[in-house]
Amino acid sequence: MSIQSVEKLGDASLASPLARFVAEDTYVPATIEWKGGRSPEEPRLFEMAGPRERLFFDPRQTRAGIVTCGGLCPGLNNVIRSVVLELNHGYGVREILGFQDGYRGLDPFRGQAPIALTPEVVDDIHRDGGTILGTSRGPVDIPTAVDYLVKRGVNLLFTVGGDGTQRGGSALFEEARRRQHPLAVVGIPKTIDNDVMFVDRTFGFTTAVDAAREVIDCAHTEAHSVFNGVSVVKLMGRHAGFIAAAASVASQDVNFCLIPEVPFRLEGERGFLQALKRRLAARKHAVIVVAEGAGQDLMAAGAARKDASGNAKLQDIGRHLCEVLGSWSKTEKVEMTLRYFDPSYQIRSRAANTEDSMLCDRFARNAVHAAMAGKTGLIIGMVFGQFVHVPITLLNGESRQVKLRGELWRAVLSATGQPEQFE
Amino acid sequence: MSIQSVEKLGDASLASPLARFVAEDTYVPATIEWKGGRSPEEPRLFEMAGPRERLFFDPRQTRAGIVTCGGLCPGLNNVIRSVVLELNHGYGVREILGFQDGYRGLDPFRGQAPIALTPEVVDDIHRDGGTILGTSRGPVDIPTAVDYLVKRGVNLLFTVGGDGTQRGGSALFEEARRRQHPLAVVGIPKTIDNDVMFVDRTFGFTTAVDAAREVIDCAHTEAHSVFNGVSVVKLMGRHAGFIAAAASVASQDVNFCLIPEVPFRLEGERGFLQALKRRLAARKHAVIVVAEGAGQDLMAAGAARKDASGNAKLQDIGRHLCEVLGSWSKTEKVEMTLRYFDPSYQIRSRAANTEDSMLCDRFARNAVHAAMAGKTGLIIGMVFGQFVHVPITLLNGESRQVKLRGELWRAVLSATGQPEQFE
Amino acid sequence: MSIQSVEKLGDASLASPLARFVAEDTYVPATIEWKGGRSPEEPRLFEMAGPRERLFFDPRQTRAGIVTCGGLCPGLNNVIRSVVLELNHGYGVREILGFQDGYRGLDPFRGQAPIALTPEVVDDIHRDGGTILGTSRGPVDIPTAVDYLVKRGVNLLFTVGGDGTQRGGSALFEEARRRQHPLAVVGIPKTIDNDVMFVDRTFGFTTAVDAAREVIDCAHTEAHSVFNGVSVVKLMGRHAGFIAAAASVASQDVNFCLIPEVPFRLEGERGFLQALKRRLAARKHAVIVVAEGAGQDLMAAGAARKDASGNAKLQDIGRHLCEVLGSWSKTEKVEMTLRYFDPSYQIRSRAANTEDSMLCDRFARNAVHAAMAGKTGLIIGMVFGQFVHVPITLLNGESRQVKLRGELWRAVLSATGQPEQFE
Amino acid sequence: MSIQSVEKLGDASLASPLARFVAEDTYVPATIEWKGGRSPEEPRLFEMAGPRERLFFDPRQTRAGIVTCGGLCPGLNNVIRSVVLELNHGYGVREILGFQDGYRGLDPFRGQAPIALTPEVVDDIHRDGGTILGTSRGPVDIPTAVDYLVKRGVNLLFTVGGDGTQRGGSALFEEARRRQHPLAVVGIPKTIDNDVMFVDRTFGFTTAVDAAREVIDCAHTEAHSVFNGVSVVKLMGRHAGFIAAAASVASQDVNFCLIPEVPFRLEGERGFLQALKRRLAARKHAVIVVAEGAGQDLMAAGAARKDASGNAKLQDIGRHLCEVLGSWSKTEKVEMTLRYFDPSYQIRSRAANTEDSMLCDRFARNAVHAAMAGKTGLIIGMVFGQFVHVPITLLNGESRQVKLRGELWRAVLSATGQPEQFE
Repeated sequence: MSIQSVEKLGDASLASPLARFVAEDTYVPATIEWKGGRSPEEPRLFEMAGPRERLFFDPRQTRAGIVTCGGLCPGLNNVIRSVVLELNHGYGVREILGFQDGYRGLDPFRGQAPIALTPEVVDDIHRDGGTILGTSRGPVDIPTAVDYLVKRGVNLLFTVGGDGTQRGGSALFEEARRRQHPLAVVGIPKTIDNDVMFVDRTFGFTTAVDAAREVIDCAHTEAHSVFNGVSVVKLMGRHAGFIAAAASVASQDVNFCLIPEVPFRLEGERGFLQALKRRLAARKHAVIVVAEGAGQDLMAAGAARKDASGNAKLQDIGRHLCEVLGSWSKTEKVEMTLRYFDPSYQIRSRAANTEDSMLCDRFARNAVHAAMAGKTGLIIGMVFGQFVHVPITLLNGESRQVKLRGELWRAVLSATGQPEQFE
Repeated sequence: MSIQSVEKLGDASLASPLARFVAEDTYVPATIEWKGGRSPEEPRLFEMAGPRERLFFDPRQTRAGIVTCGGLCPGLNNVIRSVVLELNHGYGVREILGFQDGYRGLDPFRGQAPIALTPEVVDDIHRDGGTILGTSRGPVDIPTAVDYLVKRGVNLLFTVGGDGTQRGGSALFEEARRRQHPLAVVGIPKTIDNDVMFVDRTFGFTTAVDAAREVIDCAHTEAHSVFNGVSVVKLMGRHAGFIAAAASVASQDVNFCLIPEVPFRLEGERGFLQALKRRLAARKHAVIVVAEGAGQDLMAAGAARKDASGNAKLQDIGRHLCEVLGSWSKTEKVEMTLRYFDPSYQIRSRAANTEDSMLCDRFARNAVHAAMAGKTGLIIGMVFGQFVHVPITLLNGESRQVKLRGELWRAVLSATGQPEQFE
Repeated sequence: MSIQSVEKLGDASLASPLARFVAEDTYVPATIEWKGGRSPEEPRLFEMAGPRERLFFDPRQTRAGIVTCGGLCPGLNNVIRSVVLELNHGYGVREILGFQDGYRGLDPFRGQAPIALTPEVVDDIHRDGGTILGTSRGPVDIPTAVDYLVKRGVNLLFTVGGDGTQRGGSALFEEARRRQHPLAVVGIPKTIDNDVMFVDRTFGFTTAVDAAREVIDCAHTEAHSVFNGVSVVKLMGRHAGFIAAAASVASQDVNFCLIPEVPFRLEGERGFLQALKRRLAARKHAVIVVAEGAGQDLMAAGAARKDASGNAKLQDIGRHLCEVLGSWSKTEKVEMTLRYFDPSYQIRSRAANTEDSMLCDRFARNAVHAAMAGKTGLIIGMVFGQFVHVPITLLNGESRQVKLRGELWRAVLSATGQPEQFE
Repeated sequence: MSIQSVEKLGDASLASPLARFVAEDTYVPATIEWKGGRSPEEPRLFEMAGPRERLFFDPRQTRAGIVTCGGLCPGLNNVIRSVVLELNHGYGVREILGFQDGYRGLDPFRGQAPIALTPEVVDDIHRDGGTILGTSRGPVDIPTAVDYLVKRGVNLLFTVGGDGTQRGGSALFEEARRRQHPLAVVGIPKTIDNDVMFVDRTFGFTTAVDAAREVIDCAHTEAHSVFNGVSVVKLMGRHAGFIAAAASVASQDVNFCLIPEVPFRLEGERGFLQALKRRLAARKHAVIVVAEGAGQDLMAAGAARKDASGNAKLQDIGRHLCEVLGSWSKTEKVEMTLRYFDPSYQIRSRAANTEDSMLCDRFARNAVHAAMAGKTGLIIGMVFGQFVHVPITLLNGESRQVKLRGELWRAVLSATGQPEQFE
């Protein structure tokens, strides 16, 4: 076994005001398959998350901050709210700052002043999508931000965001430690794509699948009603096709599901276009779901571009596919009525569904428990349904992907009836 | 007064199997304002729709057909279903053909064979968007179609579609009369834009406004959460801004509503861009709703193009606006995060909401009543909430528009706070 | 003709800050059918509502109040919000009091202090059901309330409630006039039952029908899935079956719709129970919708009871029907699985749907226009889709009912297939 | 370790037509906490579910049957559909019988004939709540049913139902074995209460929580809007409060959550009524959620009654609570406006939400894989998110309950602010 301990600011020696605790030395393994009846060998073990009996921070003398970064994702307000309520009602921390507009809000020269977050301020926010704190892309300037955090006396910082955000958070904690300012940085992973290692399910994902399913319904209705209708739905998924795959299974109306994990060819007898032609001949309509990161190799390489967060800018596979289909239908004389659906922002801005509401609450409260115990440089993860502490150092840019031999992809192949490969 | 009588195939002399009737000589005026307490002078009077005591067609010897044409609109299946149920359960007409894929289905050389429509076939279809008959754009070849209708022995034809469809229907009836084949053609006006003269409200419109409001909610959440967010939502409305206006009032979150009825300027102190700049300075976010037919004069005239139905192809004001905003924000150094929403097909493919479910039922049943009484060359209209018979000859290509001095536009100006003009 | 003028506090001589007006002497008739091509004789004429060119009240010196009374109804917050926005943004009235908990809030000895209503306070409230002002049943103590209104300097009072509320409002205005305090009382009719004379459609009604349709869907699913399933759904409708009827038409899944307007018998060959038995034999399931005011004569007369608002307390026809069915199924050996649905409070507490959002906005703004012009003792009505001023004196306790020879009931009979009478 | 093997009909020696498999000797442990870094000792190990490389049944000579028993639960149609599609498309089994009306359908003397289930029949059924097969309560007559299954040549039987149903299924398999008829019985656990041992989450549960949250929203709106509003919401949960607890966390608007796992007192200083009184004094409204199995000890013991499935009939704690509150409010002069919500059938009849759609698909397909491999006398379970085979013999009537020291209940206490006990 290999225990993945997280950083600690020091000994946790204060009594917690809470009543029920998770023992410090409780772990959850990263693999649980007993093959041939034998226990997995040397699994990675993560600390189980939850309230600790001993705190590092004295609630009465602790000031917390929270910041939301990157693109919108359903549940941001739920996370903010539950962090505030757990800090306030659970531990008695009264001073909580909401930094505005992502990491921009940690820079007093560029950003707006933070908001004081109280139970009253966050009372109703979980009903709404978006984030009351605002968000933005872009990195954090470490020295400036730490100056500001020290000046503001912030001891706990909750960073809600993707990989880049969390690595920034780690750097903030390292710099604060250098300056001997006790700062616990605890990350709550945020990616609508659901592709974070050691996190079974990120918040916002099921809401996104819900919303995607509704759009697929529309796409199916259109394809079914117009003459030889072909509907193309582009969904989120830069490196991983979880949303596309899950929505295809949930909907059961998708005929082709294209994801980054499975390269595909357009041309050739076993290529995608011939498969579509056969489908149209047989059924007179087709619904195609494509994840935004799929088929990037099919498009002429543009100049390598990056967005403000440093993510590589993808080319638009949805529009590309529509153009290819448009000219192919003329060349091949395959009459079709093409419809394109690109619902990205309608999905990201949704309020969390029931499932995500509960998930956000749990991520947030576990983040507070970790921080109050003086843990830092971690994100809250989830393995086999158990919340755990994952050291940020484990997030090395790798993302979780759909396993092609796993149950989800098997379900996609069954639901769509598509071949394993278009090659 | 000026009575707008509709064409009749002959004397209606058979007893109706129904129990309650609308008297033949009941009319509804097209204007009802009594100015200064005086009755409107010489108003246009329309026949009130409804079941007639005397029928022209003998139900046992009558065959009906129905066809849905043009783009999708919520409620098509409801209309089909209620036509079938009223014919079958109300009058005892047993043979009802559903022509497939719009007017293409009236051409035996191009189209698929019609479907036999029974109460069982249509039992559950009102729960779904789209149309079980399929639809397509494009005109009807009159001689071929009448040959086919005569051969099939069709006496009642219900045409669900826009202006072009209805004029086609009128030509079918004229040609059938020339051949002495008794054919009643009754149109049910279909336009999601709600812009048909003498029709207070077309079916599908309120469902579209519902759906548009949801998208505006998303647009507002995005604009509110990102840095200086500007969301542009393009909605349906080629000649009339009813959807854009109604959705703006319903949402109360729109800051600028641009419709075809109100030309606008981008540049200049009182132009749209300066107004947006002021809005961003004051409130840091903005939601813009633009009807697809708005601002066509702002774009370089492309070659005059038409779609398969003969409608002029509009240029894309939504994308144009985004491009203008993109470059303007750079030139003017107005930082903004721009989001574009184009939900057209997600709206058109919806199932009818409650309001439209009832409306479809009423349009459909009144169409059946008119046809059974031998009336033809008409559409079912609605004035002041009363269903009426409108001669197709009155539909001269003019469309109903938002009255700039009326209550709806007044409500838009109040809800958005925008000036009367950007000029 | 017979013009229904409303009371005025005096000459309206101040210029309005608005830009577009409805002329004072514009009227809308209460009947519009031209029988035999002849104009209706001597119709009742109502003043058309809308902004007037001349005001009675000077906005800078005017204080307004608003109160919501009786049971919840979707749209109350929308009405409050639009009254506040029109007063503030439209006219420049800055002082607006929200009286709390219905008429209880007009009594300083029993109620809480009023809330100051500003655009900020009402910003988001239209998204929520209920009323931010609270509500209660019970009459208003006229002298106490007028004392309080005078002391508070209130000149405009908007009363949102049913008949009793509006008659109370009228009494308030009469008493204020006696004391020479200029007080315009304008009512916005509120009844989820949609049964107010001279009001085509009250706000909240379509939302209620929406919600009712969803419950009927559930009832239908249950009835269809269990063995010989019989689902009974009780819906609102004390004196009028509009909700039950409209939901039956919208749903198309109801087999029996029982409303107060149509007395019915349970026993006998042509009674309800035999009809149900035939239905079960033929189709093995049935959905029954019953309005709460239906079949009151079938239950043993209890002591005549009234609620706090003075409305007669109805006996529970839904439970009664279930009990009758339960024992009848044993006596008659008609096996059935009975389910009862009583969704009243789940319907009343909904947020307004799109249609009602727009309707509320229009009712509210027209009420403000009337009050600013010095009109009083009226409610905002709607005839043939036009907003009008209806003198409260016309509301004599009579309620609007479903016309058994009209289109709605005809549609119910078609949709359910039930006989005209169970007798 | 202790391997929980399931029964097998014989050696599986035929090649599967599928492409990807789960190895036979793969297990998942029932406990995964490594305390002090040490592996759990001797955990129960379950076979991992999934497609097997070797089949016992030859698809071309196999006939399958499916039956749905007990009360409605969201997702029944999804399960039926995915069983049919996996059998047909996955394995090539063409003969699939849908037994009607629960176990009644296995008795040719009482029930209707089974339906032939094909991909066409089940095409769209997953969009609807309920079950196309119908359902009923009541036990199965083993000899009659086995006679019938043998006569019909059924080899695979999928039983969708609760504990009683599954024990019945086990008895069917034992009896068939006695008669040397190869019959694999595989259960898919169905309980909206989510209380089955070794099943992390039963299908329909999250849809129920979704629906419950909506009702709680209504209850909260009512309570908040009326005078001293108290809303009581009764939710499902005979032995376990999962729905009540999860909905309370998801909603965040519940003030008191009462579940069977936590006995409570009404009277006394630390009793429920005093806590409610304090809540009303402080906040003027309260929302109470009560699971149907809570507080049974508070009610006078009625005659021990059972329903047709043999479940003890509970007394109605929701109505009891309302009666207690009604009289207490008079005695104690605590003015309140009480509202009662009992949405059970509106919840059970829902269509599966996205999450449950996916879950149903996975339960169903894994059941088919197990049956084709000749496994029998098991249900499909789920531990730590992994699907497993659970021998029916392990289901000894015990149900899973909310752990009072676990995360869910901790979240309820945080969200409601209620004390740990009312005692």
